[in-house]
Amino acid sequence: MSGTFFRSGPDATIGILGGGQLGRMLALAAARLGFKCHVLCPERGSPAFDVVRRVTEADYGDKAALDRFADDVDVITYEFENVPAETATFLAARKPVLPDPRVLAITQDRLAEKDFIVSLGIATAPYAGADGEGDLAKAVAAVGRPAVLKTRRFGYDGKGQATLRPGDDLAAAWRAVGAQPSIVEAFIPFEREISVVAARGPEGRIECFDVTENEHHDHILKISRAPADVTPAVAAQARRIAERLADAFDYVGVLAVEMFVVRDGAGQSVLVNEIAPRVHNSGHWTLDGASVSQFEQHIRAISGWPLANPVRYGEVVMTNLIGDDVFGYEKWLTIPGATVHLYGKSEARPGRKMGHVTEVQVATSPSSGHDDPA
Amino acid sequence: MSGTFFRSGPDATIGILGGGQLGRMLALAAARLGFKCHVLCPERGSPAFDVVRRVTEADYGDKAALDRFADDVDVITYEFENVPAETATFLAARKPVLPDPRVLAITQDRLAEKDFIVSLGIATAPYAGADGEGDLAKAVAAVGRPAVLKTRRFGYDGKGQATLRPGDDLAAAWRAVGAQPSIVEAFIPFEREISVVAARGPEGRIECFDVTENEHHDHILKISRAPADVTPAVAAQARRIAERLADAFDYVGVLAVEMFVVRDGAGQSVLVNEIAPRVHNSGHWTLDGASVSQFEQHIRAISGWPLANPVRYGEVVMTNLIGDDVFGYEKWLTIPGATVHLYGKSEARPGRKMGHVTEVQVATSPSSGHDDPA
Repeated sequence: MSGTFFRSGPDATIGILGGGQLGRMLALAAARLGFKCHVLCPERGSPAFDVVRRVTEADYGDKAALDRFADDVDVITYEFENVPAETATFLAARKPVLPDPRVLAITQDRLAEKDFIVSLGIATAPYAGADGEGDLAKAVAAVGRPAVLKTRRFGYDGKGQATLRPGDDLAAAWRAVGAQPSIVEAFIPFEREISVVAARGPEGRIECFDVTENEHHDHILKISRAPADVTPAVAAQARRIAERLADAFDYVGVLAVEMFVVRDGAGQSVLVNEIAPRVHNSGHWTLDGASVSQFEQHIRAISGWPLANPVRYGEVVMTNLIGDDVFGYEKWLTIPGATVHLYGKSEARPGRKMGHVTEVQVATSPSSGHDDPA
Repeated sequence: MSGTFFRSGPDATIGILGGGQLGRMLALAAARLGFKCHVLCPERGSPAFDVVRRVTEADYGDKAALDRFADDVDVITYEFENVPAETATFLAARKPVLPDPRVLAITQDRLAEKDFIVSLGIATAPYAGADGEGDLAKAVAAVGRPAVLKTRRFGYDGKGQATLRPGDDLAAAWRAVGAQPSIVEAFIPFEREISVVAARGPEGRIECFDVTENEHHDHILKISRAPADVTPAVAAQARRIAERLADAFDYVGVLAVEMFVVRDGAGQSVLVNEIAPRVHNSGHWTLDGASVSQFEQHIRAISGWPLANPVRYGEVVMTNLIGDDVFGYEKWLTIPGATVHLYGKSEARPGRKMGHVTEVQVATSPSSGHDDPA
């Protein structure tokens, strides 16, 4: 009665491009399902290196290393949309790369991403591209002020951004973002920031986690709450948008869609802010607050395993530990019900995501550890 | 405002003796707290090897390998009580080994363990030692039949056991357990099997998880349920026993105490069956059903970090996937709310623990993924 387990087996190895905390948490989720992982990342001592079977420390352009990496793995994914699209394309000729590298090409360019979104009839804030400084005045005139000037490529956590208020000097803003092809986006007086983390399998089935409400400090996510305090209509609209985008990409894996809830006459509507073609900080609550996490859903999707129908355990609050916040970890360790995640980064630089904490408020707190009559 | 994180830092490396699923899940829990791990295990391809920074594939008696292992780590623990006590003692001269190797010496010997338990005034089933075949008849006479003959050392999951019913041939039973020093234990007509998984920190603080109810098939744990369906008085007694034993060992880490609930006149009482000086299968439900798992509590304890006060998320059922059970993993993958753990073992031998599934029944099922009005 013994036999080899699985058709495509536990000997399957998942290749992950990028070795930060997202790669680390993907690898930990893969391990829970019995998979092995191999992480490729240029940075020495990357957090994900500590939790996988094999590591390649190499540049994304090192084709010999990429070849060896592809030989060792069965399927390849990435933790981060700033992995060069050329790397993903090079690898895709050797092994399946999921989500498809075409998705990277679009989401690495804010202008292409916005064009893609509106081409589907989904609303965004008004925007206009500015390839050179000469285009900037026209773009700002079209969008209005206040606005935000953002580089088209390689921006995250507020990097490569400048605010344009009435009277602000355009030339200074252009220099501030590094004088490179950019996009001007209208500043939106939103009521809430929300996100939907959705998983889509190769056969097209989609599972969304509950809509999450997000609070940013200094352009960096600080707190997420699930479920978001929005009407059922807004939540349904947000989910439909995420599903629409995932279908349009023919997406395989987890993607996150950041949205604004704005007042719209007597009601509310939803504008898409940004698409992240990957697991997302606003989905970290699923690690502890749901029966299956965003990381596991991603691994299931790219492995061709069925997606889970996750159950949320209660109302969840996720707090990021950013930079020096992490020195408060001892306080968090002793708060009843708090689950602490630390990413194994040795240096706490300002703005660096060092860990996070999840708190789940269960409907009737059964207060483990105390069976005595209350 | 940048700085090095932690006093005894994320560069701390935890050494784990044993590379099975318990070592693997300990390593995954350590990773969540930012620690690195190094696993030493004699078996090629051990499940824990895939999720740690460093691996030593060496015999427990290989002193050169043990020396190098000790040099690389900051603290050492073990996944399993059958790690040779001499190995733990050898290492303890080099780095802290927790729980203390003295605990191994006692719990590796069923007779010494039982003597230790009763010396604390804690009840067990009647038992008697039989060092040679010549002692067996006397031991059986003292204990009565039915009884169970068990080897004093290296038994688990029903290995090295023989049942002694009235009329059974003692010589055959003696041969069946390998003709080695043994113990005869009275067979107990219990109402329930329960266990307490307790964590004790170096300063003596103890945190017990909820009392768990266990169901064995063919001597192997099949299902655990938390909380156990016992009276508050029984639960409190079970917890006090676990705390008493942990204190008596001056224990650091997680230990599990398996107990029988037996009818006692009009009431019930609790007998200790066995102590496991380690994380335990009956505590696997804590991975998904509580804010902090038994594995994390163990890592916290041996690292000198504060223990958590875990909160249970609901009523939890844990089902082991044993041998061929694992081929049913696809069914489990799609059950709403089920969390599947597979241990990455490539061969499904009969009786081999291949994975487990957790199901958490939350008080009011918030049914994630569906924000639409119900």
